[in-house]
Amino acid sequence: MMSAHIGVTGLAVMGANLARNLARNGFTVALHNRSVEKTDALLEKHGTDGDFIRTETLQELVDSLEKPRRVLIMVKAGAPVDNVIEQLEPLLEAGDIIIDAGNSHYEDTRRREAALAKKDLHFVGVGVSGGEEGALNGPSIMPGGSRESYDALGPLLEKISAKVDGEPCCAWIGTDGAGHFVKMVHNGIEYADMQVIGEAFDLLRSGAGIEPAEQSKIFAEWNKGDLSSFLIEISAEVLGHVDAKTGKPFVDVVVDAAGQKGTGRWTVISALELGSPVSGIAESVFARALSSQTEQRKLGQELLAGEEASVEIPETFVEDVRQALYASKLVSYAQGLDMLTSAAKEYGWDLKLDEIASLWRAGCIIRAELLKDITKAYAAEEKPANLLFAPAFTRAIAEALPAWRRVVATAVQLGIPVPVFSSSLAYYDGLRRKRVAAALIQGQRDLFGAHTYGRVDTEGTFHTLWGEDKSEISAVDTH
Amino acid sequence: MMSAHIGVTGLAVMGANLARNLARNGFTVALHNRSVEKTDALLEKHGTDGDFIRTETLQELVDSLEKPRRVLIMVKAGAPVDNVIEQLEPLLEAGDIIIDAGNSHYEDTRRREAALAKKDLHFVGVGVSGGEEGALNGPSIMPGGSRESYDALGPLLEKISAKVDGEPCCAWIGTDGAGHFVKMVHNGIEYADMQVIGEAFDLLRSGAGIEPAEQSKIFAEWNKGDLSSFLIEISAEVLGHVDAKTGKPFVDVVVDAAGQKGTGRWTVISALELGSPVSGIAESVFARALSSQTEQRKLGQELLAGEEASVEIPETFVEDVRQALYASKLVSYAQGLDMLTSAAKEYGWDLKLDEIASLWRAGCIIRAELLKDITKAYAAEEKPANLLFAPAFTRAIAEALPAWRRVVATAVQLGIPVPVFSSSLAYYDGLRRKRVAAALIQGQRDLFGAHTYGRVDTEGTFHTLWGEDKSEISAVDTH
Repeated sequence: MMSAHIGVTGLAVMGANLARNLARNGFTVALHNRSVEKTDALLEKHGTDGDFIRTETLQELVDSLEKPRRVLIMVKAGAPVDNVIEQLEPLLEAGDIIIDAGNSHYEDTRRREAALAKKDLHFVGVGVSGGEEGALNGPSIMPGGSRESYDALGPLLEKISAKVDGEPCCAWIGTDGAGHFVKMVHNGIEYADMQVIGEAFDLLRSGAGIEPAEQSKIFAEWNKGDLSSFLIEISAEVLGHVDAKTGKPFVDVVVDAAGQKGTGRWTVISALELGSPVSGIAESVFARALSSQTEQRKLGQELLAGEEASVEIPETFVEDVRQALYASKLVSYAQGLDMLTSAAKEYGWDLKLDEIASLWRAGCIIRAELLKDITKAYAAEEKPANLLFAPAFTRAIAEALPAWRRVVATAVQLGIPVPVFSSSLAYYDGLRRKRVAAALIQGQRDLFGAHTYGRVDTEGTFHTLWGEDKSEISAVDTH
Repeated sequence: MMSAHIGVTGLAVMGANLARNLARNGFTVALHNRSVEKTDALLEKHGTDGDFIRTETLQELVDSLEKPRRVLIMVKAGAPVDNVIEQLEPLLEAGDIIIDAGNSHYEDTRRREAALAKKDLHFVGVGVSGGEEGALNGPSIMPGGSRESYDALGPLLEKISAKVDGEPCCAWIGTDGAGHFVKMVHNGIEYADMQVIGEAFDLLRSGAGIEPAEQSKIFAEWNKGDLSSFLIEISAEVLGHVDAKTGKPFVDVVVDAAGQKGTGRWTVISALELGSPVSGIAESVFARALSSQTEQRKLGQELLAGEEASVEIPETFVEDVRQALYASKLVSYAQGLDMLTSAAKEYGWDLKLDEIASLWRAGCIIRAELLKDITKAYAAEEKPANLLFAPAFTRAIAEALPAWRRVVATAVQLGIPVPVFSSSLAYYDGLRRKRVAAALIQGQRDLFGAHTYGRVDTEGTFHTLWGEDKSEISAVDTH
């Protein structure tokens, strides 16, 4: 009997598409689903994609696999994953590999990996980006887990991943939850990326009166330059789409309340825990939350005072907006990558930012030309401490800076909310300024809470006796 | 033998000061500390403050109390609290009350309350704000826990709390973790409050060249108007302070890297979990995080391009900044209070926003004139769905709006980071605008992930077949 290279359990669209992708690439894939109907449906519709083995139970699935066994789980994140693991574990033996390709939280992945490692099983949390389409034709793949497991699993994943000039968009990310962590940050960046495009759209529409159809052409044009990316490309498509029912621009008939699945939120929570300032990503998550407070917004429209009077829109406005979008986007990437640096320290991961940027170049939602330059920046011998310090980006942002400032100032005067444009600019200015407002905050904290402060002219920690003669003491003297 | 009204265990400064406050207010206080030296030191130094009972063990402490027993724990948040509870619990009997007055996370408080309720013990998580000084002379007190426990405990807490026109700054907040939750949000607002003051300082300094000594006078003047508050008052003091060693303004010798203890971060994490847009509070937390990335900032100062050329500073600048500060501050309060509304729904608390605002009027760090108006706004028969919709604040912010826009636009052009000023303005504009950028985001999400969307002209959920003929289907037809 033929033995399978890999087993897949959970054959909803994502699982089915990954299984088909594997089979199309020459791997024999054992199929399993809780209800066998899905397995049979897949075989009937796509059985000719490659070599599949039909199984009805997890025992059959496991029995059909070559060793070390590779079992890929694609079920809903959370308890269902634990459930399948619990059932699988007694059927496997030392050295076998369980792969969770769903959208699990990295802390769950860390927990599961540690528990299974004790039983000599490998647990690999894999971030997969690219949606259904990517799963079938080549996603961006971010596998965590032990290095050893990657030797046995990596070749399969690399084969089915997206490619850029023949290079796979898949590489071992790091131990335990590293893969899911990096996928999470990818999604955080995606939130910001989508929001800055939204802000550009709103600026062009409300600021310059450019209709969606015309904007579609502008975005298509932008897609040929620095901004070239999947999200700009599909924005052109969405903006160009006309609603068949009303003949209106599609974006005008869509309810402007953005949903979210949670990974953006997770990113910001994790960044807060790490002390990493991902303000642009946070603003994009909050912008979605605010957009969905529809009851309050209805009242706000009635009650709150409106925009300012006339502001002159400069002739360079469209190009200004493009540059502001580019700069803001760059900051979101810088914040996301900086967060990865903090996470690497916290969790003991040796994250290679060039490899990570490189595997985001294709297959995933944030795929963009920009990522080629980011890959180069981190492949350099001297790694930049912040993406914005890489010479190419320092120059690019310096060039965009005047336009960026003009656009934010104009938006603010016009009453167009640009939370990520302005937040990213505040981050940039906070990063480059010699002195920031935090000195006063330290003074306040010392006054009301004896939280102490440092001095610019000497080492040590100090406290001022505010309630007494305001003399300064060394902080060891305080309680 | 005399029996005590309340016992206090944990006699570091905060615990000692609360004990003294209780004694000064006529309550007999049993004292306990892990090392008896602290107990004796307190008795020696402040024994004449009132009636104290010295105890050496928790058993003695418990034995000295009238029933139902009230034992107040003031130890470091986290494991130490669980530790003391574990020791206390077998010594107590049904109906007794354990009070945790430390800075515990509300989820811990919820867990502890549920566990102790099963043993018929009351557990009261109490938020106490006002620092050491407040603890001694009258803090703002936010007790959670069962209503029943408040009947036995409330009178004591109200007696020692801060007062406004004779009214205590203490009221029962709600069940289980409600008290600690409200205290946490108080701290989140405090972060934003401090940051907006910092931004005003930076604007006046870098924008208008006003030296700290002169600014001290401006802040003192501001403290007489709408902005009147503890934080403005102490900012005047800090700004007026001259460093004795160098003769320079104190704020100029303080390292501008702001520390944080974690409650601001907790607030934002909780808001993210609730889906509540507290963007201004988040920006203030991130501004502190960025200020503390000293290595990156050093490089940023060297490498990143600087500010824009000349911008004309309007003659009204100081007043403009005052108004922008007021408006931004108002938004932070609105966001914090909105978060409380979301939390009340999530956790089943009947939070009374007027009472909460009222007990923040004195004793705590964010105490401010403004809170009197906020109290009034929520005491009105028709509660505003958002603080900004209360007529007084709708008017106030409409008046401040032109100045607010001018200030943010100017800051952006000058390269002065004003993350909370600009984020608050974006929130305001997002709340009042008819259409926001989220429509395009929904279109993107539907295109790449079949996430579906609503239509403005009809009920239901829809999906466009982007990859096919772009016809629209009802979302139940999608997988």
